[in-house]
Amino acid sequence: MASDLLSIEEARGRILAALTPTVAETVALAEGAGRVLARGVTARLTQPPADVSAMDGYALRAADATEGARLAVIGSAPAGRPFEGEVGPGQAVRIFTGGFIPAGADAVLIQEDAEADNGSVLVKEAARAGRHIRRRGLDFVEGSEVLPAGRKLTARDIGLAAASNNPWLTVHRRPRIAILATGDEITLPGDPVPPGGIVSSNAHALAALIRAAGGEPVILPIAPDDTRAIAEVAGAAHAFDMLVTTGGASVGEHDLVQQALGGEGFELGFWKIAMRPGKPVISGRLGRTPVLGLPGNPVSALTCGVLFLMPAIARLSGQPGGPPPTRRVLTAVPLAANDQRADHLRATLSIDKAGHVVATPAEVQDSSMLATLARADALVLRAPHAPALPAMAEVEVIVLAELGV
Amino acid sequence: MASDLLSIEEARGRILAALTPTVAETVALAEGAGRVLARGVTARLTQPPADVSAMDGYALRAADATEGARLAVIGSAPAGRPFEGEVGPGQAVRIFTGGFIPAGADAVLIQEDAEADNGSVLVKEAARAGRHIRRRGLDFVEGSEVLPAGRKLTARDIGLAAASNNPWLTVHRRPRIAILATGDEITLPGDPVPPGGIVSSNAHALAALIRAAGGEPVILPIAPDDTRAIAEVAGAAHAFDMLVTTGGASVGEHDLVQQALGGEGFELGFWKIAMRPGKPVISGRLGRTPVLGLPGNPVSALTCGVLFLMPAIARLSGQPGGPPPTRRVLTAVPLAANDQRADHLRATLSIDKAGHVVATPAEVQDSSMLATLARADALVLRAPHAPALPAMAEVEVIVLAELGV
Repeated sequence: MASDLLSIEEARGRILAALTPTVAETVALAEGAGRVLARGVTARLTQPPADVSAMDGYALRAADATEGARLAVIGSAPAGRPFEGEVGPGQAVRIFTGGFIPAGADAVLIQEDAEADNGSVLVKEAARAGRHIRRRGLDFVEGSEVLPAGRKLTARDIGLAAASNNPWLTVHRRPRIAILATGDEITLPGDPVPPGGIVSSNAHALAALIRAAGGEPVILPIAPDDTRAIAEVAGAAHAFDMLVTTGGASVGEHDLVQQALGGEGFELGFWKIAMRPGKPVISGRLGRTPVLGLPGNPVSALTCGVLFLMPAIARLSGQPGGPPPTRRVLTAVPLAANDQRADHLRATLSIDKAGHVVATPAEVQDSSMLATLARADALVLRAPHAPALPAMAEVEVIVLAELGV
Repeated sequence: MASDLLSIEEARGRILAALTPTVAETVALAEGAGRVLARGVTARLTQPPADVSAMDGYALRAADATEGARLAVIGSAPAGRPFEGEVGPGQAVRIFTGGFIPAGADAVLIQEDAEADNGSVLVKEAARAGRHIRRRGLDFVEGSEVLPAGRKLTARDIGLAAASNNPWLTVHRRPRIAILATGDEITLPGDPVPPGGIVSSNAHALAALIRAAGGEPVILPIAPDDTRAIAEVAGAAHAFDMLVTTGGASVGEHDLVQQALGGEGFELGFWKIAMRPGKPVISGRLGRTPVLGLPGNPVSALTCGVLFLMPAIARLSGQPGGPPPTRRVLTAVPLAANDQRADHLRATLSIDKAGHVVATPAEVQDSSMLATLARADALVLRAPHAPALPAMAEVEVIVLAELGV
C-alpha cells in the first residue's frame, strides 16, 4: 500500500520540473511590487552623487574646527542647492542633511556643537575630518546591479529602483491560472442549493490563494460530472499558464476528469501522495498547459494549494519554488506517533508566559471542516513515521497568514 | 534632551487614537480577500446539510455489518444525488464521500473492507455504528456567525464564506492614502536629475507599503520647498482618508511643511520620537484629514512607515492596529548597550546548523543606505537603554517580507 504512495517532496519536485517561467513584460515602477524581476535592475546614477553631509551644521576645514574658534559663514548648502564657492581657512558654510560638502571643506560641525552669531559661527566642540560626511557612492554606484533577476520585489526594492532612477522594470508576466471546479452537486454562492448540493468554495478560496501567490486567477464556469462538459471547458486551457481542477480526483466511479481530459491530449501524472489531508492529486498536461488536479474536499484542496500550487506559481513567476517556509514552535499537547502519511494538523498559535509561540491542534481534524481551517493559524507538520512527541516539544509549522492564505 | 522625546509606543498610540475606520461597502465575495469585515458573515445553510459519508463504501445497518455477511446492494448515493429509499435489514447502498447516509443506515463499510460481487457486497471487516459518518452541521449551522466583524479575510475565509452561501461581503472601504513628497531637490524616476538633485523614492516605496497594508495609495505631484506650492497640493487632502508627507520634517530652516499647512487648518501633533532611524515625525490634522509626516530620508521613512503608517492603515481599515508582529531570533554578533533611542538594526536572517534563525546586522547602519535596507530581511529591535548582549542571545525582530515590505 505504502509503496504506491508518492512523498510530498517527490510530488512537488515533479510538478515543478514540468514548469517554465512566463515571458517577461515591461511594467511601470509603480506596478512592480510583488513581481519577480526577469532582468536585474542597474543603477543609473551614483548615490550620493558627491560627498554629502549626514547632519545639519556647518561645513568647514577640520584644521579650523578647534574648540572656541570663530569662523565666517560665507554661504549655505541645503540639499539640492550646492554651494558653488570654496571654503577657505577660517570660513564655514551652513549645510543641511544631504547638502554637498563644498570644495575646501573636509568636516561637518553639527549644529548642536555650534553657536551661530551674525554671520559667524562659534565652534563649541572640535570637529574631526570626515565625520558626518557620507561619501559619494556610499549607497550605490552608477552601472552596478542594485537588484538581481529572480528577485520578488518588496516595497523597499521599489524605493531602491526609484532612487537609482529606474522608471521601468522588466518582470515576469503574472501567471494566469484557470480554476475548474467539477461536480454535479456544486452550485455558485448565492444560487439555490438543490437537495444534496453543496456550494462551490474551492474555486473562490483558490482564487484568493493564487492572487496571494502572485498569480492571476480565472474561475471557469462549473463543469457538471459529464465528460463532454468537462472536456469542453478544459478546451480553453491553452489560454492559461496552468489549469487547476478541483473535485473529480477521488478513486470512485465518479472520477471523470481523467477520462474527460483524455481526448484533449491529457497526460496523467500521478494519483496518490503520502499525505493527509489531500491524498489524491492529479498532475499532468493538457496540450502544452500544465494541469494540477486538487482534491474536491476544501481542506484538502487548500492544503494541497499551499504545498503544491503556491510553489508552482512561484516557479511560473520566475522564482525557484519550493517547500513553503516553516517556523519552529512548541506543541501545546502531546502528539501521537504518525503513520506513513505526512500529516498537517490545523492549529491555533498563541504566546505562552515565557514568550514562546505555542501551537494547539484542533481536537477534530476532519478534512471536511472548513471552519476549523479558517480559524487555524498554522499547519503543524508531522512527517511520515514521526515519533510521538511530549507537550512542549518543538514542531515545525506553516503559518498560513504569512503566506497570505 | 531625552525628556522632549516621545516613545514609539506613545507616538503610535496618539496616531491611532485620532483615527476612525472607513465606512462599509458591499463587495463581491471574489473581491473580499485581504479586506476587513465591517459585519460578521452568517452561515446561510448548514454544512453538511445531513449526515454524510466521510468515505467511499457502503451505507448499511451496523447490526448487519458483521464479518462474512453478504448484503444486497439496492442503490447508490453519490455526493449530490441522495438515495431516496430506505436501507432495510440485509441491504446496503453504494455510497461515496459526501453522499447522504440513506434512511435506515447507521454505518459505513469502507470499500477497502468490502468485496462487491454482482449486486451484493461481502463484509470483510465489521463496521461500527456512526463510523465514517460526518454529522449534520459538523462544519457550521445555518444562522451561526462563521466570520466575525473586524476579521481581515484570508483565502480560507473566502472559502468559508462561499461554502456558507454568501456571495456578498460587507467590508471596510480600503483607506485612500495620499502621499506628498516635498523638496526642491526631488525629481521623478527617469526625469533628468539636476546637479544636487535626488530621485524621489519614498513616495513609490510608501505606495507599495500602503498597498501591502491594504490601503489605496495616491501619489500627489511633488511639491517644491515653497509654502504656497505645498499648501496648494495639500488642499486636496479632504479627498483622502490620510495624508502622508515625506521630507520637510527636519529641524533646519527648510522645514516648510508645518508653515505651509498652517493656513489649511493644520494642527501640529509632535516632532521627535525616541527612535533611530527616523526621529522627526509630524502627526496632525488638515481639516478633517489625519496627517502623518515622515522623514525625508528613505530608510527612516520606511522604518516609520512600518512602525506608524501600517498600524494606522490597519486602524483605518477596521482593525485595532498596533505594533508590527515580531519574532524572536538569535543575534549573530554581540550588540552594544543602547542609548535612549529605540534602534532598528537592518539585518539579514539565516539558519544555523542547529536550525535556529540568526540575525546578522549590517556593519554600517547609516540611515541613507537604501540598498542595505533592501538587502535586509529584518529589523532587529533594540529598546531604549537595552543592555549589551552577547552573540547568540535572543533578540526581537520585525521580518519585513512577512509584512509585504
